[in-house]
Amino acid sequence: MVGGGIGAFIGEVHRKAAALDGQIELVCGAFDIVPEKSKEAGKGLFLPDNRVYGTYDEMFAKEKALPEEERMNFVSIVTPNHVHFPVAKAALENGFHVVCEKPMTINTQEAKDLVSLVEMTGLQFALTHTYTGYPMVKQARHMATGGEFGKIRKIIVSYPQGWLSTRLETDNQQASWRTDPKKAGPAGALGDIGSHAENLAEYITGLRITEVCADLSSLVEGRALDDDANVLLRFDNGARGILHASQICAGEENALRIFVYGEKGGIEWHQHEPNTLLVKHLDRPVEIYRTGVDHGSYLCDTAMHNTRVPSGHPEGYVEAFANIYRNFAHALGSRLQGEEPNPENLDYPTVQDGLRGMSFIETVIASSKSDRKWTRFE
Amino acid sequence: MVGGGIGAFIGEVHRKAAALDGQIELVCGAFDIVPEKSKEAGKGLFLPDNRVYGTYDEMFAKEKALPEEERMNFVSIVTPNHVHFPVAKAALENGFHVVCEKPMTINTQEAKDLVSLVEMTGLQFALTHTYTGYPMVKQARHMATGGEFGKIRKIIVSYPQGWLSTRLETDNQQASWRTDPKKAGPAGALGDIGSHAENLAEYITGLRITEVCADLSSLVEGRALDDDANVLLRFDNGARGILHASQICAGEENALRIFVYGEKGGIEWHQHEPNTLLVKHLDRPVEIYRTGVDHGSYLCDTAMHNTRVPSGHPEGYVEAFANIYRNFAHALGSRLQGEEPNPENLDYPTVQDGLRGMSFIETVIASSKSDRKWTRFE
Amino acid sequence: MVGGGIGAFIGEVHRKAAALDGQIELVCGAFDIVPEKSKEAGKGLFLPDNRVYGTYDEMFAKEKALPEEERMNFVSIVTPNHVHFPVAKAALENGFHVVCEKPMTINTQEAKDLVSLVEMTGLQFALTHTYTGYPMVKQARHMATGGEFGKIRKIIVSYPQGWLSTRLETDNQQASWRTDPKKAGPAGALGDIGSHAENLAEYITGLRITEVCADLSSLVEGRALDDDANVLLRFDNGARGILHASQICAGEENALRIFVYGEKGGIEWHQHEPNTLLVKHLDRPVEIYRTGVDHGSYLCDTAMHNTRVPSGHPEGYVEAFANIYRNFAHALGSRLQGEEPNPENLDYPTVQDGLRGMSFIETVIASSKSDRKWTRFE
Amino acid sequence: MVGGGIGAFIGEVHRKAAALDGQIELVCGAFDIVPEKSKEAGKGLFLPDNRVYGTYDEMFAKEKALPEEERMNFVSIVTPNHVHFPVAKAALENGFHVVCEKPMTINTQEAKDLVSLVEMTGLQFALTHTYTGYPMVKQARHMATGGEFGKIRKIIVSYPQGWLSTRLETDNQQASWRTDPKKAGPAGALGDIGSHAENLAEYITGLRITEVCADLSSLVEGRALDDDANVLLRFDNGARGILHASQICAGEENALRIFVYGEKGGIEWHQHEPNTLLVKHLDRPVEIYRTGVDHGSYLCDTAMHNTRVPSGHPEGYVEAFANIYRNFAHALGSRLQGEEPNPENLDYPTVQDGLRGMSFIETVIASSKSDRKWTRFE
Repeated sequence: MVGGGIGAFIGEVHRKAAALDGQIELVCGAFDIVPEKSKEAGKGLFLPDNRVYGTYDEMFAKEKALPEEERMNFVSIVTPNHVHFPVAKAALENGFHVVCEKPMTINTQEAKDLVSLVEMTGLQFALTHTYTGYPMVKQARHMATGGEFGKIRKIIVSYPQGWLSTRLETDNQQASWRTDPKKAGPAGALGDIGSHAENLAEYITGLRITEVCADLSSLVEGRALDDDANVLLRFDNGARGILHASQICAGEENALRIFVYGEKGGIEWHQHEPNTLLVKHLDRPVEIYRTGVDHGSYLCDTAMHNTRVPSGHPEGYVEAFANIYRNFAHALGSRLQGEEPNPENLDYPTVQDGLRGMSFIETVIASSKSDRKWTRFE
Repeated sequence: MVGGGIGAFIGEVHRKAAALDGQIELVCGAFDIVPEKSKEAGKGLFLPDNRVYGTYDEMFAKEKALPEEERMNFVSIVTPNHVHFPVAKAALENGFHVVCEKPMTINTQEAKDLVSLVEMTGLQFALTHTYTGYPMVKQARHMATGGEFGKIRKIIVSYPQGWLSTRLETDNQQASWRTDPKKAGPAGALGDIGSHAENLAEYITGLRITEVCADLSSLVEGRALDDDANVLLRFDNGARGILHASQICAGEENALRIFVYGEKGGIEWHQHEPNTLLVKHLDRPVEIYRTGVDHGSYLCDTAMHNTRVPSGHPEGYVEAFANIYRNFAHALGSRLQGEEPNPENLDYPTVQDGLRGMSFIETVIASSKSDRKWTRFE
Repeated sequence: MVGGGIGAFIGEVHRKAAALDGQIELVCGAFDIVPEKSKEAGKGLFLPDNRVYGTYDEMFAKEKALPEEERMNFVSIVTPNHVHFPVAKAALENGFHVVCEKPMTINTQEAKDLVSLVEMTGLQFALTHTYTGYPMVKQARHMATGGEFGKIRKIIVSYPQGWLSTRLETDNQQASWRTDPKKAGPAGALGDIGSHAENLAEYITGLRITEVCADLSSLVEGRALDDDANVLLRFDNGARGILHASQICAGEENALRIFVYGEKGGIEWHQHEPNTLLVKHLDRPVEIYRTGVDHGSYLCDTAMHNTRVPSGHPEGYVEAFANIYRNFAHALGSRLQGEEPNPENLDYPTVQDGLRGMSFIETVIASSKSDRKWTRFE
Repeated sequence: MVGGGIGAFIGEVHRKAAALDGQIELVCGAFDIVPEKSKEAGKGLFLPDNRVYGTYDEMFAKEKALPEEERMNFVSIVTPNHVHFPVAKAALENGFHVVCEKPMTINTQEAKDLVSLVEMTGLQFALTHTYTGYPMVKQARHMATGGEFGKIRKIIVSYPQGWLSTRLETDNQQASWRTDPKKAGPAGALGDIGSHAENLAEYITGLRITEVCADLSSLVEGRALDDDANVLLRFDNGARGILHASQICAGEENALRIFVYGEKGGIEWHQHEPNTLLVKHLDRPVEIYRTGVDHGSYLCDTAMHNTRVPSGHPEGYVEAFANIYRNFAHALGSRLQGEEPNPENLDYPTVQDGLRGMSFIETVIASSKSDRKWTRFE
């Protein structure tokens, strides 16, 4: 693991998600840019001292030198955004598979470089767009892409948070780097959560956004990056859409939600209650689909594959996260044994999603600066 | 009453709303463009035959000729959109107060003419933007305009319906006129429900929309008017917003909802559960405000004024509608007795809201046709 | 109308419910036990002075003397409980049909007397168990009694309110008579709301309670009647149940809800959101049934008969109330014209429900006083 | 670990819960009564072959013989109910701390024996009443026991499941042992889930049930144990209550919920949405308390201690389970280092809760068989 030292948020989530299913063991790390802090973090994680490194370069070099059965199989990158690229590049160049936080890089060029590197090396690369890990999101994708609702006409995805309603960046570590263009990249709310929304909309519908019309704002005075993003969307099949991501929606937690409408019905999903999927029909009652290993009578195989417990035992954010890790690890395991992975285990976001996300971010920023209504999203 | 014959939807709602509080009596009507049908409708409403008219012209002429204590006090106009204007004009010119369905007219010029006529005649004119009649909407307005949430930064209002997901207009009376430019005016979903959304957003926040960026579509093949409207908004205080109205959201009923966010908190309201208002705060739990005559400890006077029963006895759509009628009638009653109306009774949508609504519709249509991102809304 | 003077709650609801559909006109009343107050109330209701009476005896006598086409057709009794019986008796003896508040009387003997009188006179008698007037309750009944869920096994009905959490009776008119054994009868919460719960459970399931085991308490110190009732139930088909009614559930409004479970599924209904009925199945997703004139594709005829507006336009408490009035009035209208009423219009609670309610109250009180576990409910 | 072989439900949950926080490592196990199956299960869990045992006796003997720093610190017992006692007894007698599934034993005598053994040995013993591990349950306890709501008057706890609506035991492993008196003990639904409900009610309120009046039934024909339990409760402070647990509520998942009412307010919590706690007040709006490390402004220390991620990132069943493990492990860790545990880490269900649970089960069964209304619960 690179990053995820003491006080970090997402590194701890990665560790829990990786540990949950007993398939993955944390064996080494470079947890902090300050070597002493890295050591301290490693100790708290029960790692032997010689597997806790001062820098990621040191880690890749020394791990590579270990016997194959001892060394780490893949690296998780959980640093602030601007460090994703150099670490991922170094990992791939040193032959390590990668799990990387999003947004993948801070510009499209870096993203393209990683795509090339992954293609060249043939290594596995997962991007933690956590929200596509939820079973009910998988079910929604199954229904929307399987023609259950006819042609998809309308998609509304919104992601309101409220935690940056005040100028928190002056004294909060998380807020500080996420609102600093040098560390977060060119986008604030758009990059941090808007890219999740984009990924979710395309994942569920299988459609591609082709045009955007954006209004980005920094509504908190003195903020360097956008904290509010409103975007009109057009999709490749003619569907219309709206994407809204904001971190100044005071009183909201992490309220990602999506509505998809087709000719014959659609779905509604709220991340706050992730085990529930509302399925809508033209002339029949709305149905409440629910996560659960006992719901095989109506859930699709992919939803079932990503579910752990019987219905009514809520699975949460860490479980969704763990689905990415578990699928990634199983696919990797198969490959390490020379086998073709089960297609269900290839269902995790990849370096291509990372490129698309960066490209989306840059396109939306360009649109927001433009006076023209529509900007093409290639 | 003009319009509202057999098979009509909104006319019947008007009659129930007017009757609910025992303050208003239906005394006459021209219920259908076909005189025989008007007669038949009037019989079903227990009206004496001589007060059921074949045309509105006849009605105004004959009612005017009646002694003051016998003749109708005001007329309710519940016809398809294109007839609102001529009837309203005739009513005002003949000295009758008016309650009119929305959108008020089918173009801005007509709307301006009505504004002038109302100013000239000094008659009362109410527009039935029903949704502002709900007590919790009044409470939201009270809090948002009273500074409870600091400066308002973001407004999201959406109004999805699904009933026009198929080409219903070929065999459904309601669908037929609402998708016919000659009867509905230049807008479909935008006029029918988008104007409600605009009115609601401005009513609650007290802000004015100053710029729009719109994407109107007819997503059902062969439809003559828009059935899907997505609009980015900017408000006069710098707030950002999104308005979305659609009649092709398969499986949705009448799901008007609004989210308002200020610096310190905000509100969320869903028309399907109108007696609940979520009140959000930066560092405190969300509160669930509820309609009820017993909730005077925390509801504002205007919310209380528009509430009839104790909490937990759901008030619905007809009650919201009836609030417009009741306030209108009380204000009228005061004036007929030479008294100044209680300010609470002046809280109903007026001819000015009608003009603003028509202007909004025309501005959004212009924006949708334009390649420029922003169109001013005066 | 008898009762329902200034400051009364339920009388006003009756008037609104009766007025809503334009079928019923308030023509006379004895609104208060103090003749002057009755007169004042009548004036506020726009009644001619000669139709506002000082006592109900006077009213029955004088109305009876009027020509048939002028006099009232039926009387609504909205007094405190102890006055229901004498007024209803007088009404029936004078040939007037009756709509009566519940509980019908203050003891079973009175209830039996009314049953006899109704049978003897052949007059119509409706009891306003409002909650069975909701369309979704009708739908639930349709499904539960129609075998949709197989044999019914379990019924849980609960009715928590919080308004009597403090000793409100010392200075609140509503609380005062409802906690006074002389006016309310032998039961407090049990009579006021527990009888609604009993009626609802039997109405929906078509089953009959055969045994009860009750624990009644007065949890607010100094209160003369029960304010909390917990009752185990057994039904005539072997089903088990729980009934819980309480007026000391601080923070609750009027939260009547019912869960019915059969072999193959069941229903859940909450009065606070009355237009929603959850329909549960063994191996399929829960379905959300919703009120609406456009939901004829899946709602039963009786639900449709009692619905006024399209889905998503919330119908509330007054509409449920009005369904009793409308059905009663239509049935009466048919009979006055010598026709057999449409069976749908006979779907309102009757004098038999009133007797059963009183009997239930007395049986539960007996059970609560007994050391034996089960008390038969005949 | 003892039990939890292939096909088991709760063993897998224990492993995930123990692994989640990276504090506990599975080092050995006797996973199945069939030694070969135990070996196979151990292999799947990446355990070295010599730490996978054929029987628990073998495991305790061999582990005891290992050097202290190598051998297991505690054992998790996840077998069917009837095996809890012998394994727990053997573990304690061999000096191992214990985490045990509920119900702790199959009769009170066994439970008392374990209490004595724990007292004698001074070993740690945790019982996995999972539901008290949720942060919002901790918050509810904090408020209810801290006097926030005044004296508690009423408690309703219900736990409906539907999975045993049919005679599933004939071909389902989980259903089979849970409905077999030899393996499950004397109670079915009552023991399996009713004991959770009892534990939750007493945990949250700090009150003790003193009398019960029960109606247990086997509503599915041919079932050997109760599948439906309805119980009236009285508490030591005079509060009234209802406990309802059922496994024949067709269409329900795992819908544990609790309502607590005091003089000035109360709480409502639903296990299906465990991160939400409704807090009710006499004269103020209901508040929605929510889990989240960012909610320290209003959540109590104990709730915060048991929360991992920011609000809006749902924590679920496994996290609640992990809270028991984490607290247990931290307390154990402190003791192993000769330190007094942080009181927050002693907040897990103990052998005393296990005894109380067994005693509750036996008392309710006795009550159900009795004709007397009330049975004392000591």
